[in-house]
Amino acid sequence: MSINSSVTAFAPASVGNVGVGFDVLGHALDGIGDTVTLRRDDRPGIRLQGVFGRIRELPADPASNTALRPLVALCQDFSITEGVAVTIEKGIPLGSGMGGSAASAVAAIVAANALWQLGLDPERQLIYAAMGETVASGAGHLDNLAPSLFGGLVLCEAGDPPAITRLPVPADVCCVLVHPELRVDTRDARAMLASSVPLSTHVQHAQHLAGFVAGCLRSDMDQIGRCLRDVVIEPQRRALIPGFAAVQAAATNAGALGASISGSGPSMFAWCRQELAAEVAEAMVDAFAENDVATEHWVSAINAPGARLLTSAAGAVSV
Amino acid sequence: MSINSSVTAFAPASVGNVGVGFDVLGHALDGIGDTVTLRRDDRPGIRLQGVFGRIRELPADPASNTALRPLVALCQDFSITEGVAVTIEKGIPLGSGMGGSAASAVAAIVAANALWQLGLDPERQLIYAAMGETVASGAGHLDNLAPSLFGGLVLCEAGDPPAITRLPVPADVCCVLVHPELRVDTRDARAMLASSVPLSTHVQHAQHLAGFVAGCLRSDMDQIGRCLRDVVIEPQRRALIPGFAAVQAAATNAGALGASISGSGPSMFAWCRQELAAEVAEAMVDAFAENDVATEHWVSAINAPGARLLTSAAGAVSV
Repeated sequence: MSINSSVTAFAPASVGNVGVGFDVLGHALDGIGDTVTLRRDDRPGIRLQGVFGRIRELPADPASNTALRPLVALCQDFSITEGVAVTIEKGIPLGSGMGGSAASAVAAIVAANALWQLGLDPERQLIYAAMGETVASGAGHLDNLAPSLFGGLVLCEAGDPPAITRLPVPADVCCVLVHPELRVDTRDARAMLASSVPLSTHVQHAQHLAGFVAGCLRSDMDQIGRCLRDVVIEPQRRALIPGFAAVQAAATNAGALGASISGSGPSMFAWCRQELAAEVAEAMVDAFAENDVATEHWVSAINAPGARLLTSAAGAVSV
Repeated sequence: MSINSSVTAFAPASVGNVGVGFDVLGHALDGIGDTVTLRRDDRPGIRLQGVFGRIRELPADPASNTALRPLVALCQDFSITEGVAVTIEKGIPLGSGMGGSAASAVAAIVAANALWQLGLDPERQLIYAAMGETVASGAGHLDNLAPSLFGGLVLCEAGDPPAITRLPVPADVCCVLVHPELRVDTRDARAMLASSVPLSTHVQHAQHLAGFVAGCLRSDMDQIGRCLRDVVIEPQRRALIPGFAAVQAAATNAGALGASISGSGPSMFAWCRQELAAEVAEAMVDAFAENDVATEHWVSAINAPGARLLTSAAGAVSV
């Protein structure tokens, strides 16, 4: 193998929905993510070589693997026939609501774009990564993919191509993410949602979402705090999470601007001022513990960086 | 009567909903509005003295008059027993979707606040004005009241007190408003709405609304253009407006960023660059004409001023 025979890319975990923005908003998390390495291989085709990290096994069939499926599509579109061995290091717990399937897909596409020097712009990378997300959730939802690729808090407008807008957030606001040791299947969490929203709830949600977006852009903590609430999805999914109400109340009582379900759960997140992060995290962890649920947790900037190459095809490292 | 025995206030018409923001967004219009004069009177009570302008008659019963009802509430709360004679000059056509009932209520409260030197802050004035709006639409919707009072484009969060955020818009964007000579009753237009929104439509709307708010704050014309569309309410109400599809298409073909129904209609509005305003207005007027509908139209800044005193209690003029 030559020195440029492999590429490794990292893509961060993410908080999909951010409570108030179901299928609209998402933000990256710092310090946790999936890493994908692609190695040129004499055997043709896309081959799963190994899985390590938090789990040791993933489906080898590209149709069922969020990292492999977009690579197959890419090879078809660009008539790439050479073989590639794929290694996936899962840093993100499965079924955690932390955007693990999105991160694997994004890391795979970022690595492939570098390995084959395809020069895909970020929107095209996003579209390919979305082909991986369909494996996990049945549709290419962008609210985890886009923050994992671009970093920070992003607003996703569906379309062809989708339009992604990175939103600013107040500098001293951060995210506390608490992962209870439970699994929720994204497909199940979607299937349980009612097929319609009462008009009055729809209007209430619209006010919150518009206010939340304005609050982020205007750096208005009070407005963010008033509007970081989910009246549509959370009431339908909260029963999946033992202790949900206690954890949410613990977060806001400790000074968080708001707290809700990360993605389809069971992880919960809170936004708070940085100086309160330790206190908010402890309160949430304790509330889960009182419900006999063990947890891990992270504190992250909202403006966390997006996906990046760890080793380039030329062997250089750029973190 | 002494020189400070009367006060006159003006409140502008407004575009409720702004297409994408049903019960969330609204903006003021320049050059058209209602004017209310309050005169101290020896006879106790709130009395309708005269109506002129576009119409000559309005209900004299405060329970059915959007300007009188909030005055009665104000007198009760502040134990005001002196009599007041109310004159209303209607500049806004009835049942036009241009926020006429809101403007009359706002002008009445702004005048009363000055006449009795109550020192009500704007949020309190808004709450009293909302008591008038309940006459017209069955609920105190703020998306006409708030822009009429504050001016400009506003985002309304319900609450006690409601939170109103004035949003910036790109400097060279203006509004074309075309009023077809038809009437739509606000209560009827509300009653025809389905009681729920399909989840997929709800999500699509959320993306548009979030993108529209971000586009205004980021001064991003492309994003405003992509997102100024109403997938929830417009499809249900468009049948009330003869030629709706032709008028909307005429506006966008003439270069408008978007066009939809003003409030509950039948007026239609378009947002466009100032240099295209005449062309957009002509296209919309022509399209209505081809459907045998006569129209009036206005071109207005989005950042139009809100309600103001025309003559103060001391007789001074401040426009």
